[in-house]
Amino acid sequence: MVVALVKTLSLKEFLEIPETKPASEYIHNQIVQKPMPKGRHIRLQVRLCQEINLKVEEPKTAYAFPELRCNFNDHSIVPDIAVFLWEHIPFLADGEIPDNFNIAPDWIIEILSPDQNANKVIGKILHSIQHGSKLGWLLDADDQSVLVFRPNQQLVLMTNSDRLPVLENIFLELTVNDIFNWLKMS
Amino acid sequence: MVVALVKTLSLKEFLEIPETKPASEYIHNQIVQKPMPKGRHIRLQVRLCQEINLKVEEPKTAYAFPELRCNFNDHSIVPDIAVFLWEHIPFLADGEIPDNFNIAPDWIIEILSPDQNANKVIGKILHSIQHGSKLGWLLDADDQSVLVFRPNQQLVLMTNSDRLPVLENIFLELTVNDIFNWLKMS
Repeated sequence: MVVALVKTLSLKEFLEIPETKPASEYIHNQIVQKPMPKGRHIRLQVRLCQEINLKVEEPKTAYAFPELRCNFNDHSIVPDIAVFLWEHIPFLADGEIPDNFNIAPDWIIEILSPDQNANKVIGKILHSIQHGSKLGWLLDADDQSVLVFRPNQQLVLMTNSDRLPVLENIFLELTVNDIFNWLKMS
Repeated sequence: MVVALVKTLSLKEFLEIPETKPASEYIHNQIVQKPMPKGRHIRLQVRLCQEINLKVEEPKTAYAFPELRCNFNDHSIVPDIAVFLWEHIPFLADGEIPDNFNIAPDWIIEILSPDQNANKVIGKILHSIQHGSKLGWLLDADDQSVLVFRPNQQLVLMTNSDRLPVLENIFLELTVNDIFNWLKMS
C-alpha cells in the first residue's frame, strides 16, 4: 500500500518562501504563478495606473498600485492593478506606505493575457468582491471589452463608447474605446 | 476625400448567407466564426448533452441540443449546448422539431476553447440571460471550473465537489469533478 503525502502550504508558509517573477499567488491553498506580461498587457497596466493616479493622488482620494500583493481571507493575490481608497491604505505611523497590505483592494483590475486562464482570473475577482472590493474590471484586449463586476449586481460586458463605472469620489471619465486606443501608440 | 462605405449586414441578411463550419454567429451586428472544436471540447459537449437528455427526454421536461442556432433580439448565436424546457420547444403542428428556434435557450452551456475569446463568450451568455435564459454555464477545462450565471444573481465560480445548479424540474445531480472526470476516458 502506498500512502501519498501531499504537503499543502499554509498562507503563512507561502508568504515565507521567496517571491518569484512573475509573482505567484496563493488561491484556495494552491500556488499559481502569474503569466509573464507582454507588450499590450504592460502598456494597459502602466497607462491605466497613470490615468487613475493623475486624478486621485493629489486630492488624496485613492491610489492605484500595479502588482501589489494583497493578503486576505487565506488568499494572497497580486492584482494587475489594485486601487485603494486613501483612507484604506494602511499607512505606517510615519506616514510611509507599508510593504504588506492585508486587505482586499477597493477596486481590482485584471488584464487578461492570451495564455491566461479566464475562469481562474474571474475567480480571483469574484473572491475579492466577496471580501470587500467594491469594483472589479477584467480587460480583454483581444475582444476590446471590459467585464465589470460589482457586489450584488449582474456582471456587465462593456464595449466601444460605454463609459466605465469607477469608485465613488473618483472623477475619472473613461470609455472602453479610450482604454484600448492606448494600444495604438505610434 | 475618401468615403469608406462599410456594409453591415442585418440579421435577416446574415441568416440568408450559407452556413459555415464551424458555425458563424451574429452578435452586435458583427459576424464571428466559432473556433474549431478540439478533443476535450467535443467530449464534454457530447457527454453533457447525453447526461442531460437521459434525464429529461423521457419525462418530456426538456431537451439539450448541441450547436443549435438560436435567433433572438437581433442576434443569432449557436451555443455549444442549448437546453430548452419541453414547453418552450416550438414544435411544428405535426409534432416535429422545427429548424428555426427564434428564442433564447432556457439554459445555455458554453465550453471555453483555448483559442477562444473569454469576454466574447461571456458576453454571449450575459446576452442570453438578459433575454430569457434562466441559467448559464461556462466550462473551463484548463481550470477544471464552471462559471454559473443566473438572472439577477452574482456570478459564481464552482470547482471540485461543488454541485452545479440546473433548471427547475430537471433532476440531474452533477458536481464539477463529475464533468471534468469525463475527460479521463481511458
